[in-house]
Amino acid sequence: MDLIYALDLAGTFVFAISGTITAAEKRFDPFGAAVIALVTAVGGGTLRDLLIGATPVGWLKDTNYLLLIVLAVPVTWLMKKFILRLRRTMFLFDTIGIGLFTIMGLQKTLDAGLSPAIAIVMGTVSAVFGGVVRDTLCNEIPLIFRREIYATACLTGGGLYLLLRQMSVNHDPAMVTAIGFVILIRSLAVRYHWSLPALK
Amino acid sequence: MDLIYALDLAGTFVFAISGTITAAEKRFDPFGAAVIALVTAVGGGTLRDLLIGATPVGWLKDTNYLLLIVLAVPVTWLMKKFILRLRRTMFLFDTIGIGLFTIMGLQKTLDAGLSPAIAIVMGTVSAVFGGVVRDTLCNEIPLIFRREIYATACLTGGGLYLLLRQMSVNHDPAMVTAIGFVILIRSLAVRYHWSLPALK
Amino acid sequence: MDLIYALDLAGTFVFAISGTITAAEKRFDPFGAAVIALVTAVGGGTLRDLLIGATPVGWLKDTNYLLLIVLAVPVTWLMKKFILRLRRTMFLFDTIGIGLFTIMGLQKTLDAGLSPAIAIVMGTVSAVFGGVVRDTLCNEIPLIFRREIYATACLTGGGLYLLLRQMSVNHDPAMVTAIGFVILIRSLAVRYHWSLPALK
Repeated sequence: MDLIYALDLAGTFVFAISGTITAAEKRFDPFGAAVIALVTAVGGGTLRDLLIGATPVGWLKDTNYLLLIVLAVPVTWLMKKFILRLRRTMFLFDTIGIGLFTIMGLQKTLDAGLSPAIAIVMGTVSAVFGGVVRDTLCNEIPLIFRREIYATACLTGGGLYLLLRQMSVNHDPAMVTAIGFVILIRSLAVRYHWSLPALK
Repeated sequence: MDLIYALDLAGTFVFAISGTITAAEKRFDPFGAAVIALVTAVGGGTLRDLLIGATPVGWLKDTNYLLLIVLAVPVTWLMKKFILRLRRTMFLFDTIGIGLFTIMGLQKTLDAGLSPAIAIVMGTVSAVFGGVVRDTLCNEIPLIFRREIYATACLTGGGLYLLLRQMSVNHDPAMVTAIGFVILIRSLAVRYHWSLPALK
Repeated sequence: MDLIYALDLAGTFVFAISGTITAAEKRFDPFGAAVIALVTAVGGGTLRDLLIGATPVGWLKDTNYLLLIVLAVPVTWLMKKFILRLRRTMFLFDTIGIGLFTIMGLQKTLDAGLSPAIAIVMGTVSAVFGGVVRDTLCNEIPLIFRREIYATACLTGGGLYLLLRQMSVNHDPAMVTAIGFVILIRSLAVRYHWSLPALK
């Protein structure tokens, strides 16, 4: 579907911008920034494709993704003030991206004949693993392990999607509802500083 | 074989507990702990399966592994005192797991038509790589590169297994002997503080 | 071709030595050093093979690579003074290796039916990713993200190769020219301290 493809590209672009920002904070050069943008944007889908055996992995087969990601570096650099003012919009697209990547990854895993529980995990991997690699390459403990309930939103969103599908809701409304749920959870989490308690 | 499957699950569970303990020391939240438990438990087998091209990787195809790993987090949290007192038993299962994962990984690599030398390396990867990823994600230099002769035990145990097999010993006694050998080496290494000398 | 195979092995050996040197600086034991030597030498090709779906990955199918890599640890240890005096020769082989790995990786990606832009990226991944993993495992921010214009040399060298091929230059002269170009760029970059400016 064209809208989904457009949203997928938009999510990829926003992820790439967030990678570029992290890289700039670490004073990487433009090449390093492009690498961090790339792994942030496609890292999750890549790990999912590798694990379920869907190779060559997705972004190798459609050069538009690579193009957008490389473009994100100069765009971020030239428009940094503008981007910083756009934080709210960025956050929205980032969250839409997360929701979309979760459901798309979940669906792809089901299509590969794997179980629903595994599909939820793979959907979440698709959405959050890019950020984990980004933080690891930048030599920081991945944010996701400590603060936001980021992944919890993906897991519950994925579960909701499967539930709706099992109740015979069609793919499109189920997906929209699940993505909306992810956005809601994440927004509430950020606004009210929800977080899971640390262990020990 | 049922005993092997049971030992495999037990080894997976103990690896997951060790991952949870590491995550708790770093004050990760329960989700982060589950991720660390997962990579510790299945990271080695996953890398092996990816490298030899056996996808979807093993744990995606049998949800029991995922279930046990997720269970390890609350179990560790609720029973931490008990688990700390069980250190000796934990160490035993951990070492059985290492031996078992080595031989199973080795066998799977041979079955994929690769050479014995490569099979020994892949067996060792199966057993130790999960710990390497765990330490990397927790932002520490992997323990294995500096202290225990952990991997040496796997490599020699794998070699012993191949030797016995070549001498026409059947699979089961060869495996039991090799696992016993891994346990022996590792126990002696820990008791007598064996370690390889550092380079330079 | 025999010369290419010989150069490939030589490049692998030099990469393994550079990995061993890094590991020794971190005071790893010989096993840890062998692991770092391995990932430095074959990490790039491994990631490329995984991403394009060419499994089992290359070095699993030809034990010579593993043999040479394991050999690099004692060789480096025994001949460290000699190797340090050979820095110039090492640098040359390292750079030849980078150029060669770039073009070989690019070609393998094209052979898998992927686009030229992706092939250039995969060629560069083949050449530089081993060093990224080495640095990550040693708990350092990968050098490549901050200093040398290492990867830029690979990207432009790969682009030159494709350009020459499109102009109907044969494979061999195009490859030699591209590798020569990579060597030239990298040597100039080191001599004149070229580097990309940091972002922000």
